[in-house]
Amino acid sequence: MSRSSSSYSIGVDLGGTQIKAGLVLSTGEVVDSLSKPSQANDGASIVSGNIASVIHQLIRTNSHLLLEDLVGIGIGTPGLIIPDRGIVHFSPNFDGWHDIPLVDLVRQKLDAQLTHLPIHIENDGNAMAYGELRQGAGVGMKDVICLTLGTGVGGGIILDGQIFHGSRYVGAELGHTTIFGDGRLCGCGNYGCLEAYVGRDQIVERTRAKIIKSASCSPILEAQMDSLTPKIIAEAAAKGDELAIEIFTETARYIGIALTSFAHILNPQMAIIGGGVSSAGEKLLFEPIRAEVRKRAMDTNAESLQIVSAKLGNQAGLVGAAMLAQQNQPS
Amino acid sequence: MSRSSSSYSIGVDLGGTQIKAGLVLSTGEVVDSLSKPSQANDGASIVSGNIASVIHQLIRTNSHLLLEDLVGIGIGTPGLIIPDRGIVHFSPNFDGWHDIPLVDLVRQKLDAQLTHLPIHIENDGNAMAYGELRQGAGVGMKDVICLTLGTGVGGGIILDGQIFHGSRYVGAELGHTTIFGDGRLCGCGNYGCLEAYVGRDQIVERTRAKIIKSASCSPILEAQMDSLTPKIIAEAAAKGDELAIEIFTETARYIGIALTSFAHILNPQMAIIGGGVSSAGEKLLFEPIRAEVRKRAMDTNAESLQIVSAKLGNQAGLVGAAMLAQQNQPS
Repeated sequence: MSRSSSSYSIGVDLGGTQIKAGLVLSTGEVVDSLSKPSQANDGASIVSGNIASVIHQLIRTNSHLLLEDLVGIGIGTPGLIIPDRGIVHFSPNFDGWHDIPLVDLVRQKLDAQLTHLPIHIENDGNAMAYGELRQGAGVGMKDVICLTLGTGVGGGIILDGQIFHGSRYVGAELGHTTIFGDGRLCGCGNYGCLEAYVGRDQIVERTRAKIIKSASCSPILEAQMDSLTPKIIAEAAAKGDELAIEIFTETARYIGIALTSFAHILNPQMAIIGGGVSSAGEKLLFEPIRAEVRKRAMDTNAESLQIVSAKLGNQAGLVGAAMLAQQNQPS
Repeated sequence: MSRSSSSYSIGVDLGGTQIKAGLVLSTGEVVDSLSKPSQANDGASIVSGNIASVIHQLIRTNSHLLLEDLVGIGIGTPGLIIPDRGIVHFSPNFDGWHDIPLVDLVRQKLDAQLTHLPIHIENDGNAMAYGELRQGAGVGMKDVICLTLGTGVGGGIILDGQIFHGSRYVGAELGHTTIFGDGRLCGCGNYGCLEAYVGRDQIVERTRAKIIKSASCSPILEAQMDSLTPKIIAEAAAKGDELAIEIFTETARYIGIALTSFAHILNPQMAIIGGGVSSAGEKLLFEPIRAEVRKRAMDTNAESLQIVSAKLGNQAGLVGAAMLAQQNQPS
């Protein structure tokens, strides 16, 4: 896979509100990026037109790059994606989408000079994991899991350098691994999923419940009781607020319980943790996660597993999608 | 992989007390099998001599089969096995074994006419899963997990038709998936593993605890309080003993919780459940397991997953090891 350093691809991160797209060199460098509303409720034709439009705009404003060096387009988006068929089977963000042939639709909207390009589509959690593997925290690794701590808890699994999909493309739902079989009802219908404890709203809810129940007071958090976010809680913890520290200690423990299962089932080399909540950082989050896994997991499984912070931030999906388009290109 | 139906291999199931070996046709038929004490405490040279000895004996007593049709030897054994290097890195059944080059040792003990044969070595849980895939409940499947409910809870994962090992050969420890993060201490050091609830001794222990605590009486089980086994409990349940039924309802629920995590993480086509405890059967075990997974797992993940009984019984490991030796043979 040695390639001309001038070759590049376009990565698209298609969300329910925004389309983010970037022009990404084979070195992983994001040369330029821009975003545009996705107009999720206006149908697949409009959405794919918007995708084509950002692609055209990126190419126009970067005319110093040769079109012949553009090797392909990658699209990452939430939902049940069937990459081999270029289809969005189901999406939580696009109401009524069912078996939408997004790759074909986008191709139809592209300028004639671009229609020959391969277009890859992938689930966004998988794209993020692939981005981190190729250009982020996982460079040099082959077997990696990726957790994204946001509104929900996203996941991706890389085995032997390739995205793992499962038999019907719904594997790697790592946020829906059970950590307490009799635990909280999760949005997915299961009980005690990791997401039911460490999703953004669940962290806030746990904090509120603790403030109400707690004998100790937490003036910083109480003052912001109605506008709490994981970020505010992390900042309070950094200032020494005991209740906030306790929330992150628990959060780390929950993640450590899930990582132990992943270590025993998948025995990956690395767990990459990203998403907004992960910015709580080493001391509040990563160190106690590692301690929990060391306490719980069998020795070889624990020793195999590096637990690290994601590196690409909210560009992981875009970079991953772009890298998919550069995979297996002739050098 | 179309092969001469006359070709065959030898599968060896190396345990702490017994070596079982069988002569297995490419159709999966076990033509002949025999066993011999393994002499686990007498060192790797004696053990490998015993393995060679059963192989020689099998060949001698089946002289109607042509030696030129024998394509290889497979060995399945518990522990951390490194198949590519032919090594037992660690074994729970062979004290002091560390990085034992078992494949080479066995080869050295073989008759000259056999030393050219490929010898494969594999973890026994993986070998069982592969046996069920190739000749048992999983025929025609590509993505399968296998649970063996015995003294411990063994596991194997097949992805895309191949055994999944993990980065350091300690993946597929499915019995050590957490189902209750604050649950019972498991032998592995983790808390709330599946095995800590449905291992043979744990089922017995749960039953005893329930008899002691229970207001309702269970004359069948109380009479055998000191000699309880999962089999006795299953028989009592089949006769309508309510406490015994409750034990299996719980056992099925625990397994269903773990299978839901596997469905979400791995999205396999099939979960094959074998081992002594699984003989409790459809009504007591499999139906409630399926109900639990339907209740918990996300729709596509649940729909993807057939949950079935293993077919090869205690020959799964032997057949799987033999089939490994027939994998990728020229036709």
